[in-house]
Amino acid sequence: MGRRDLEPERIVRLEEDRVVLLDQRRLPDEEVELSCGSAVEVAEAIRTLAVRGAPAIGVAAAYGYALAARRGEDLDAASAVLASSRPTAVNLEWALREVRGSDDPAARARELHAEEVERCRQMSAHAAGLIDERSRALTHCNTGALATGGVGTALGALREAWARGLLRHVFVDETRPLLQGARLTAWELEAAGIPHTLIADSAAGGLLAAGEVDCVFVGADRIAANGDTANKVGTYPLAVLAARHEVPFYVVAPSSSVDLGVRSGDEIPIEQRDPAEVSSRFPAWNPAFDVTPADLIAAIVTEHGAHRPSYVESLAQAVPA
Amino acid sequence: MGRRDLEPERIVRLEEDRVVLLDQRRLPDEEVELSCGSAVEVAEAIRTLAVRGAPAIGVAAAYGYALAARRGEDLDAASAVLASSRPTAVNLEWALREVRGSDDPAARARELHAEEVERCRQMSAHAAGLIDERSRALTHCNTGALATGGVGTALGALREAWARGLLRHVFVDETRPLLQGARLTAWELEAAGIPHTLIADSAAGGLLAAGEVDCVFVGADRIAANGDTANKVGTYPLAVLAARHEVPFYVVAPSSSVDLGVRSGDEIPIEQRDPAEVSSRFPAWNPAFDVTPADLIAAIVTEHGAHRPSYVESLAQAVPA
Repeated sequence: MGRRDLEPERIVRLEEDRVVLLDQRRLPDEEVELSCGSAVEVAEAIRTLAVRGAPAIGVAAAYGYALAARRGEDLDAASAVLASSRPTAVNLEWALREVRGSDDPAARARELHAEEVERCRQMSAHAAGLIDERSRALTHCNTGALATGGVGTALGALREAWARGLLRHVFVDETRPLLQGARLTAWELEAAGIPHTLIADSAAGGLLAAGEVDCVFVGADRIAANGDTANKVGTYPLAVLAARHEVPFYVVAPSSSVDLGVRSGDEIPIEQRDPAEVSSRFPAWNPAFDVTPADLIAAIVTEHGAHRPSYVESLAQAVPA
Repeated sequence: MGRRDLEPERIVRLEEDRVVLLDQRRLPDEEVELSCGSAVEVAEAIRTLAVRGAPAIGVAAAYGYALAARRGEDLDAASAVLASSRPTAVNLEWALREVRGSDDPAARARELHAEEVERCRQMSAHAAGLIDERSRALTHCNTGALATGGVGTALGALREAWARGLLRHVFVDETRPLLQGARLTAWELEAAGIPHTLIADSAAGGLLAAGEVDCVFVGADRIAANGDTANKVGTYPLAVLAARHEVPFYVVAPSSSVDLGVRSGDEIPIEQRDPAEVSSRFPAWNPAFDVTPADLIAAIVTEHGAHRPSYVESLAQAVPA
């Protein structure tokens, strides 16, 4: 990441007696680390979005469990509090299963993190292969180093495309209500030296209508067996607009985000967050995610490659049951 | 408007030596009046959105011109500065033509305001006729008393539907970047006692997909001869989503917003506002409006009635050449 040294251990790491993470709530104004001394504190960091992004919260939860094991905490309780910190991302459950089944949770958590870094690299390489020369991409939320602990999913693909000389510009949805695009993605793009422009989420329609976007890249919090994809609220409108303007819409996510146990998007639980994130003055509805139907997605890219419809087949092949 | 006495003269009025308006930048936190002592100050109030909404800025500009006439200002200069304060709304030009052609600009400006109030009443009545019983409506930006100096356009229709017992709930897009929905529309709905819920603009997709919306009502800043409609940025994505979910999408605006001199949306100038409204930290693109193609609009309602496609015919009949 150049000048900011956004190495994997800077996003989240396990130290002797604590889990330390870059507090994403304070970015881009301040680069401050948050120290969590127990599984409960790690769960609280996840719940309050000090660390967010499906892959990164999986890694953070694994470290949180490993910390609990070291401290001799009640491991059933630790696992339960971590698992319930965010309801939509399936990586969280998966990462906890992995560390719970290990004799050395700390080693397994570090291994999971390293695997996430490697998966990001593979996904980014596969996804960059979908990008034409001189492309202008649009992305939503933050799917970069901050979201993954690696190079990123959708944003990793754009970084790789930039490195290959394929990318001209990145438009970034600010991503209300918590402004992950305006705070985190723009910050990562600036650090990487990639030309970028923020837009209000609702300006994406006019931008696409003006022919200014060649491809849309987003991440995923959970992908159903049929390819329906839950991702940050606002993803679905982007997919509908991209389809109208015949701009390819790509999802990039590790295979750990694919949940073959869920047949379609209807079965994905959607986290409802505090209405005060939208308004502290008037009643508000604040879902964290929405579901994009598979028929609007040109390809789903995992570390195994770019999967095309029909996703029931292509995802089942990519993801071990 | 009940407890807040949001009478037409509270939005904007001409006094002996000044134009006084409710400073909408300060709402909902404070109800503060702004006093403008010259046409330049009125133009500045329009430019900085102390008063906004196509019909209301037409009225404010007319009062600003009348003030300039009283003060013996250079009327060509006053007209020019007022006309250039916002580029998209055609009402502004229309209102200025009306006062410039009058022997008594102050009387004509007050008459224009009274006409706007009456047009709002008529539009609202026509548009309420499109609303089924127990409807849940979605609206964008602010199109109420604050935007018109009357009861409103789209929001006027919803108020009338509420009065007729037809409306169950209003969902309000917060309307980034300046949050006219979250600050102004919610404030007006609260004052009117109409049940309402704010959403992030990008949550409208999930809301429509969930079947929670029966109709969408928006205003207009300029309507081309073919029905293409420029309105607050974010209107076009809503229209695309409404079409996908077979929810009728209605535009409510006075006939003064129809510009028969403009054949299609391509010819409507779109105001670019300060990128700092989106981000003071990173580069941003900040168009104030987008264009909704006529084929996504179920009806355009003016004071003359509900006009249906083909709009080339129905609008030409409604608007005197």
